[in-house]
Amino acid sequence: MMKQRLAIDMDDVLADTASRFVEYYQTRTGNELSWEKLRESSQVQLPDGTFTTLHDWVFEEGFFRGIKVMPDAQEIMKKLHEKYEIFIVSAAMEFPYSMKEKLEWMQEHFPFIDWRFIVFCGHKYMIKADYLIDDHERNLSTFEGTPLLFTAQHNLHIQDFTRVNNWQEVAEMLL
Amino acid sequence: MMKQRLAIDMDDVLADTASRFVEYYQTRTGNELSWEKLRESSQVQLPDGTFTTLHDWVFEEGFFRGIKVMPDAQEIMKKLHEKYEIFIVSAAMEFPYSMKEKLEWMQEHFPFIDWRFIVFCGHKYMIKADYLIDDHERNLSTFEGTPLLFTAQHNLHIQDFTRVNNWQEVAEMLL
Repeated sequence: MMKQRLAIDMDDVLADTASRFVEYYQTRTGNELSWEKLRESSQVQLPDGTFTTLHDWVFEEGFFRGIKVMPDAQEIMKKLHEKYEIFIVSAAMEFPYSMKEKLEWMQEHFPFIDWRFIVFCGHKYMIKADYLIDDHERNLSTFEGTPLLFTAQHNLHIQDFTRVNNWQEVAEMLL
Repeated sequence: MMKQRLAIDMDDVLADTASRFVEYYQTRTGNELSWEKLRESSQVQLPDGTFTTLHDWVFEEGFFRGIKVMPDAQEIMKKLHEKYEIFIVSAAMEFPYSMKEKLEWMQEHFPFIDWRFIVFCGHKYMIKADYLIDDHERNLSTFEGTPLLFTAQHNLHIQDFTRVNNWQEVAEMLL
């Protein structure tokens, strides 16, 4: 029997991108700020008085390469990989450094995913799969298979999709 | 009415990758060699006596960035872009420098293609589209829409697909 196909997003699903912003904030300013508050700040004042934005950080070399893996993602992905055909589907084109870094990141943390199953794209609606695990409504609402909303601060208000709050819940649903 | 979706490969379809190898050969050795002969050489001897391979060149920074656009591709892509939804679908993951270079290349030569419609991948069979224009049998044979084989030296023997020999023939078929 053909394996079912899972399409899985990277940022804020496999990768704890939100925490990377919090970490950058702490390193750059010497202060702590929750992601909830940080993500709503349009600007960040640095100790030298100049301002930066979260958007600037994403364009910096090294931002993506150093992101932590989401808790339990490695172990559960290994099990999912035995049962499903997995494609990693990540919006990477917007940030020039991110592609090479994201590929290296995948090779380090998820070496059992062959590069042929990694997709960098903008839109995701042309991907044919049975499930898409993603934190963005715009990707899930145009997906033709079963969408699963991976919980993130920015999507707490969304009620249109089956929600998975963490990788343990992904395992419960799909394993 | 929804536009039909075209998926279009880069190397040896939009981009004249074969000529880039011939150009590298000429620059590096000072000699000329047809692509037909060059592609069959497992090694190339350099003037200093050392050997290199075509595969080494692909891994060099700048290889992809400097590839010439295939004749008529720009003009015909502009017209196709009015009539179809176009996704560029390129195998880029294998070569670490290629992704940023291919993206810049697209922005230079095909600025009317928004980055959201560019896909870097390995396998292509999970792409849902009405047509795929590609030079590789392995991509066409697993594609679920209508496959169109773009002629290249390496696929002259293949008879299983509708063939387009150049961009003028793409125009005749799809415009």
